Amino acid sequence: MRELIAKAGFEAGIKLGAVFHQFIGLPISFENVEIIERAIESCVSLQPYVEEVKVEIDRDVLRKSISGYGYATLLPEMLRVEVLVSVKEENLRCKVRAKLEWIEDYPLMYLKEVVLSE
Amino acid sequence: MRELIAKAGFEAGIKLGAVFHQFIGLPISFENVEIIERAIESCVSLQPYVEEVKVEIDRDVLRKSISGYGYATLLPEMLRVEVLVSVKEENLRCKVRAKLEWIEDYPLMYLKEVVLSE
Amino acid sequence: MRELIAKAGFEAGIKLGAVFHQFIGLPISFENVEIIERAIESCVSLQPYVEEVKVEIDRDVLRKSISGYGYATLLPEMLRVEVLVSVKEENLRCKVRAKLEWIEDYPLMYLKEVVLSE
Amino acid sequence: MRELIAKAGFEAGIKLGAVFHQFIGLPISFENVEIIERAIESCVSLQPYVEEVKVEIDRDVLRKSISGYGYATLLPEMLRVEVLVSVKEENLRCKVRAKLEWIEDYPLMYLKEVVLSE
Repeated sequence: MRELIAKAGFEAGIKLGAVFHQFIGLPISFENVEIIERAIESCVSLQPYVEEVKVEIDRDVLRKSISGYGYATLLPEMLRVEVLVSVKEENLRCKVRAKLEWIEDYPLMYLKEVVLSE
Repeated sequence: MRELIAKAGFEAGIKLGAVFHQFIGLPISFENVEIIERAIESCVSLQPYVEEVKVEIDRDVLRKSISGYGYATLLPEMLRVEVLVSVKEENLRCKVRAKLEWIEDYPLMYLKEVVLSE
Repeated sequence: MRELIAKAGFEAGIKLGAVFHQFIGLPISFENVEIIERAIESCVSLQPYVEEVKVEIDRDVLRKSISGYGYATLLPEMLRVEVLVSVKEENLRCKVRAKLEWIEDYPLMYLKEVVLSE
Repeated sequence: MRELIAKAGFEAGIKLGAVFHQFIGLPISFENVEIIERAIESCVSLQPYVEEVKVEIDRDVLRKSISGYGYATLLPEMLRVEVLVSVKEENLRCKVRAKLEWIEDYPLMYLKEVVLSE
C-alpha cells in the first residue's frame, strides 16, 4: 500500500514539474491565453494516470506583465495548475489531487488530497 | 541598409530558435497535435515583426514515435516552422522568410528569401 | 502517514518531471556533456527535500546522435536521472528513491524504493 | 551580399532565442549561478558560426528573487547574453555581435554591430 500511495504522489508531482519547466518562458498575451491554457491541459491529459487537469493563467498578473511590445513571458507567478491522478493496484486505488500556485514569492506545488478506496 | 538586412535576419532567427527550444519535449499525440500547432503559432505571432507563421508537426514521424503509453515527446525531427518577418527603416523594408525543418539528421534553420523593397 | 508517503513520492516526481522538461532540447556534445550533467544536478540539488541526485547522459546514444554539425540535441533516450528525496513529519521520515531512464521507447519515471523510518 | 548579411543576423538571432527559451525557468541560486553561466555558454559555443559568447546572470536580481526556499527561478530580467557570430561566403565575411538584456520591462534582443570584411 505504501508503494501505491507513493506512486500516486509521484505521478502527480511529475505532471506539475513538467508543466512548470516546459512552458515557463513562452510568449503570452490576452490574444492567446486561452489556447495556451487548453494546449497545456492537452499535454497533461496525455500522460499516464491523469483523471482531471485544470490550467489557469492569472489575468491580473498577465495584464501587469505585458511590456511595451504588447505581450509578456509566461512567468511562475501567472501559472495555476490543478491535477487529479488515480493509480490502481489489485483491489486498491489511490487518488491524489495536487496543485501548483504562486504563494508568497514561490511557485508552490502541494498535495490537496490523498484518497484511498477499494 | 546593412543594419536593416541583418536585423530582419536576426528577428527571423530569434523566432525559430525560440520555438525549437521552448517546445521540444512536450507530450504530443494525434489528439492534441492540432492545438499544439496553433498554440505555437500564437506564440510566434505575438513577437515583433512577424507577418506570417506556419507550424507543422510531421504526422508520419509522430505516428512512429508514439510509445506504448499512447503518446510521444515532441522531437526535433517532427517540427517544421516557416516564418516571414518584415522590418522597416525610413523608406526601406526588408522581408525575410525562414524555415526550420529536419534535414539529414539535423534540425536545420535556414533563410528561404531576403527581399528589399521601398 | 498517508500524506507523508504521498508527499515523498510527489517531491520525487516534481524533480524528475522538471529535469526532463527543462533540459530536453539543449545542444550537447562530448565537449560539454560533463558540465551539463553537473549543471542539471546543481539545479535539482537546490530544490526542497533532495538528499542525492545523479544525472547521466548516455555516451553511446550521444555518439550516435551527433549530426554533421558536430553536436546533438539532448534527447529523451540520453537522459538518466536518479534522485533521493526525504520528507519528515513529526517522528516519521519517508525516503523515496526514483529514477528516470529510457526503457522500451519511453522515458520511464519510476519509484525504486519507498522507506519509512522513525 | 544581402544573403550573407541576413544569414549572419539570422544565426545570431537563433542563438539568443534558443538561450532564452531553453533556460528560463531553471532553479538557480548563488550556489550554482557560475556553473549555469558556463553550461549555457557551452551550449551556445557548440552551435554553428559562433565565435564568442558571454552569459551573465544578474546577481542583484538573483538576490532579490530568492524565495524562502533558498533559491530562485531563472527569470527574463536576470539574463544577459552577448554573442558574436561570423559567416563567410566566397571572399566576404560578415560578423554580427548581438545582445540579450533586460531593458524597460522587456528581454530585448538587439544587434550591437554588423561588420563586413574580406
